[in-house]
Amino acid sequence: MAKYTIGVDFGSESGRSVLVDVADGREVATAVYPYSNSVIDERLPESGIRLEPDWALQDPQDYIRTFQNTIPAVLKQSGINPADVIGIGIDFTACTMLPVKADGTPLCVLPEFRAKPHAWVKLWKHHAAQPEADKINETARARGEGWLNRYGGKISSEWFFSKALQIANEAPEIYAAADRLLEAADWVVWQLTGVETRNSCTAGYKAMWSKREGFPEKAYFAALNPLFEDVVDAKMTRDIRPIGDKAGGLTEQAAQWTGLIPGTAVAIANVDAHVAVPATTVVEAGRMVMIMGTSTCHMVLGTEEHLVPGICGYVEDGILPGLFGYEAGQSCVGDHFAWFTENCVPAAYEREAQSRGINIHQLLEEKAAKLKPGESGLIALDWWNGNRSVLVDADLTGLLIGATLLTKPEEIYRALIEATAYGTRVIVEALENNGVPVTELVACGGLPEKNKLLMQIYADVTGREFKVSASGQTPALGSAMFGAVAAGQQAGGYDSIYTAAPVMGKLKEETFKPNPQFSQVYDRLFAEYISLHDYFGRGGNDVMKRLKAIKAEQIKA
Amino acid sequence: MAKYTIGVDFGSESGRSVLVDVADGREVATAVYPYSNSVIDERLPESGIRLEPDWALQDPQDYIRTFQNTIPAVLKQSGINPADVIGIGIDFTACTMLPVKADGTPLCVLPEFRAKPHAWVKLWKHHAAQPEADKINETARARGEGWLNRYGGKISSEWFFSKALQIANEAPEIYAAADRLLEAADWVVWQLTGVETRNSCTAGYKAMWSKREGFPEKAYFAALNPLFEDVVDAKMTRDIRPIGDKAGGLTEQAAQWTGLIPGTAVAIANVDAHVAVPATTVVEAGRMVMIMGTSTCHMVLGTEEHLVPGICGYVEDGILPGLFGYEAGQSCVGDHFAWFTENCVPAAYEREAQSRGINIHQLLEEKAAKLKPGESGLIALDWWNGNRSVLVDADLTGLLIGATLLTKPEEIYRALIEATAYGTRVIVEALENNGVPVTELVACGGLPEKNKLLMQIYADVTGREFKVSASGQTPALGSAMFGAVAAGQQAGGYDSIYTAAPVMGKLKEETFKPNPQFSQVYDRLFAEYISLHDYFGRGGNDVMKRLKAIKAEQIKA
Repeated sequence: MAKYTIGVDFGSESGRSVLVDVADGREVATAVYPYSNSVIDERLPESGIRLEPDWALQDPQDYIRTFQNTIPAVLKQSGINPADVIGIGIDFTACTMLPVKADGTPLCVLPEFRAKPHAWVKLWKHHAAQPEADKINETARARGEGWLNRYGGKISSEWFFSKALQIANEAPEIYAAADRLLEAADWVVWQLTGVETRNSCTAGYKAMWSKREGFPEKAYFAALNPLFEDVVDAKMTRDIRPIGDKAGGLTEQAAQWTGLIPGTAVAIANVDAHVAVPATTVVEAGRMVMIMGTSTCHMVLGTEEHLVPGICGYVEDGILPGLFGYEAGQSCVGDHFAWFTENCVPAAYEREAQSRGINIHQLLEEKAAKLKPGESGLIALDWWNGNRSVLVDADLTGLLIGATLLTKPEEIYRALIEATAYGTRVIVEALENNGVPVTELVACGGLPEKNKLLMQIYADVTGREFKVSASGQTPALGSAMFGAVAAGQQAGGYDSIYTAAPVMGKLKEETFKPNPQFSQVYDRLFAEYISLHDYFGRGGNDVMKRLKAIKAEQIKA
Repeated sequence: MAKYTIGVDFGSESGRSVLVDVADGREVATAVYPYSNSVIDERLPESGIRLEPDWALQDPQDYIRTFQNTIPAVLKQSGINPADVIGIGIDFTACTMLPVKADGTPLCVLPEFRAKPHAWVKLWKHHAAQPEADKINETARARGEGWLNRYGGKISSEWFFSKALQIANEAPEIYAAADRLLEAADWVVWQLTGVETRNSCTAGYKAMWSKREGFPEKAYFAALNPLFEDVVDAKMTRDIRPIGDKAGGLTEQAAQWTGLIPGTAVAIANVDAHVAVPATTVVEAGRMVMIMGTSTCHMVLGTEEHLVPGICGYVEDGILPGLFGYEAGQSCVGDHFAWFTENCVPAAYEREAQSRGINIHQLLEEKAAKLKPGESGLIALDWWNGNRSVLVDADLTGLLIGATLLTKPEEIYRALIEATAYGTRVIVEALENNGVPVTELVACGGLPEKNKLLMQIYADVTGREFKVSASGQTPALGSAMFGAVAAGQQAGGYDSIYTAAPVMGKLKEETFKPNPQFSQVYDRLFAEYISLHDYFGRGGNDVMKRLKAIKAEQIKA
């Protein structure tokens, strides 16, 4: 009898369930629930309380509604007997966190806190905790905290303690009322199983935890805010569970929500990017997985621990148990092309695309594909949204060099694609130069699905073969795989993600191999990129920062 | 009885006559003749002989047809008695040159040379003589020719001896058959008067002549090509006539062509840019005149001789008799904005302009005018077509820095305008730092007519008052003024351009004064421009040249 698992992927705007055949990873049914309160960034529901700029909240009941809507839907669509669904895995955006009571009740559902912004879920893109992040970084530097090096020397305002500290600083009564502070990823697993667990992925990448050193010490937290001294022991836990473990079995209530059998295995929570790694068959060192969407997240496994300056971080057991998971990122990839098509593509091109019944990206790709490397004479620095890795500097801005009166839109478009490929090569070389080999690129996400030119350019620029996930919903597939591991071999699943990945993970047959002739030209262009990258990014000329400062002055004036 | 003169302005696509009242410079009538053979850059007329790339020729008979069509037309329009037209002046593009027989017959009208490209007029933008220009520069540097410094250290492929040498190198039979080689400017004056004259403006700016040193010596010309040793004495003359002189009187034949009286005074030929100076009332040192169109030509008068590195050149008597005329240039100004609107303005903006019944430049100007200096966070280097002054480097290319995902088209548009203003400030400062004061800017040409934002930005960036010609056809007005000087006071004209200019020249009442607050911000932005200008333009990083070289390789490959 065939066995199935369900992967539930919680995105920014909606949650998605995918029912997968454990034998081969076939995606049997999919259902999506658009969150009824979506991203809350203007006013709180019901009370209408207005939020300050840079806030981004969510409603935890939308996550429960995701279970209630999508799991029954995939069961119905597929006609599968719930008894044949042996496990569930979930993945979430991160850091997306919330304050709850000891029994798991979110503070924001309690009438006394319903109109308090700090009682709600802080979504990953809540950017109002920058002062807290600054304090976290300054204090760590002043005290010489060693863990800072694991994160390329800088903690983001998006991460766990920045958000938690903002609650303590701005709403001490909420902080006091919160028995627990946790990732939404762990909270939904708690809701399914009745058991509170904490996963190693978010703890490591977002909460400064490491398997060997644990969390930063109390004196450090006390230096941030006296209320914060005991945050780990009072409101979190030091019991961090590795990715791949089983969290528990489905409760009676969760079984009612979903239509599944009580006791069905539920995996320890995971993060949307990281869970994609085994779903692309990658369970070994050296094959870098890139989740390519508006931005790109790069992940590569390593057998050894290495400090790599400028990456987002590395976590032992963070992606797969038993390996170090290195993560880096580029903050502007798909966003780059979207900006370009919205702001820089002339009406004549729009008309041409319309008359030929293709979209503007297809037209640009077609025209850009006719150019050879170097033929445009252009180089861009892909910093339209700052630089995440390896410069870790949000104040850097975009640059385009080499334009002439004959420069065409498709040449600029290609130069932007190439710039993001150079940015990836910088990350690849930083990893390799610091002892973390990268032998191959593997992509998933929206961009590589749509743009073959982009894939070929990445292969040519990095000199490495580039492969693409065969799933259009890679994170959900990855979660379903962890669901099969949580169920275990005896129940018809797998005992390890290492045995599940080769069977359930999948790549397209088509791969992109570097063209040696093109790679040679790109080597020369990359040398030019590096000289501009270092000049503008490492203090040779801080004109970008000065222009930003003048801009800020003028907007205020 | 009112007296009139006619200015004839020979452009790249058409010739124009303007009939002007000598008493006040009022433009009474205008007529334009579009050249029947326009710019010849693909095939010769009649023979259909195909031209090589970068060639640009014209048909000298189009110039005669300009006289035959436009002068009778302005007489008819105005109803003025031809006897009241006391003088004619002409101005021309330069260097636009041709080979002719001793009697003035162009070689290209003779049947035996009709199918020979080198027998035709080489228009100013004929760019096929670059190898000759290279040879001219190398040889001059090798021999330590002092005159090279007068031209900022570099002779252009557009100039007289580059074009003449190309004839000698590639078509020795045409070179041998040419009794005379001369500027089309001087040739049309010859056709009107029957007298061959050579003007000091083209001789000085385009043919390495100076009042004090004459032409380069024979040994230098011989080093270029043995045939070329005697080029000055055999095919030109050392008798160079200052701007403001009378060339002669109208011949019987020219009187028949035009409907004017035989003997009517004709001025020594002039160049379209330079003749505009007195037409904007400028006859003294310090007020810089800018002809702003696709490119900008900057001219300023000085009482002393100074070497100014990087300007196009300076010529004694070159613009006005008795003064040194300094010329500099920016190779990409109006072209910049045309490139931008054609290639970078999104369809949504086109629709907005259409729905509001304005053109795209107006829409962009309106949106850009709402921004404060520095608010865009952008700086551009205005080198989309290389840099003429003060770097004299055609291999430099454009740069834009500071872009973010919120950057709007009007911000880029404004940054391009600002970049051209910074380029002008570089020229102003080069002149001033080398002893040539610049106290005020005076503009004419198409751009300042249309774009007030541009004028204000130039005033703010340079910190100088900016005025605009009140004539829409400034060069033709200037030529009419020189026609009045050729006629002389006794005939109802003027004895000197110095007395004609205050009466016949004209400026708009509206002027643009620098806003001190904005100028302060622009001082800071200009410092950033200069650091980028020097880094990329003076050898700090030759990435632009290397990208161009890679581009050329790839296009060939």
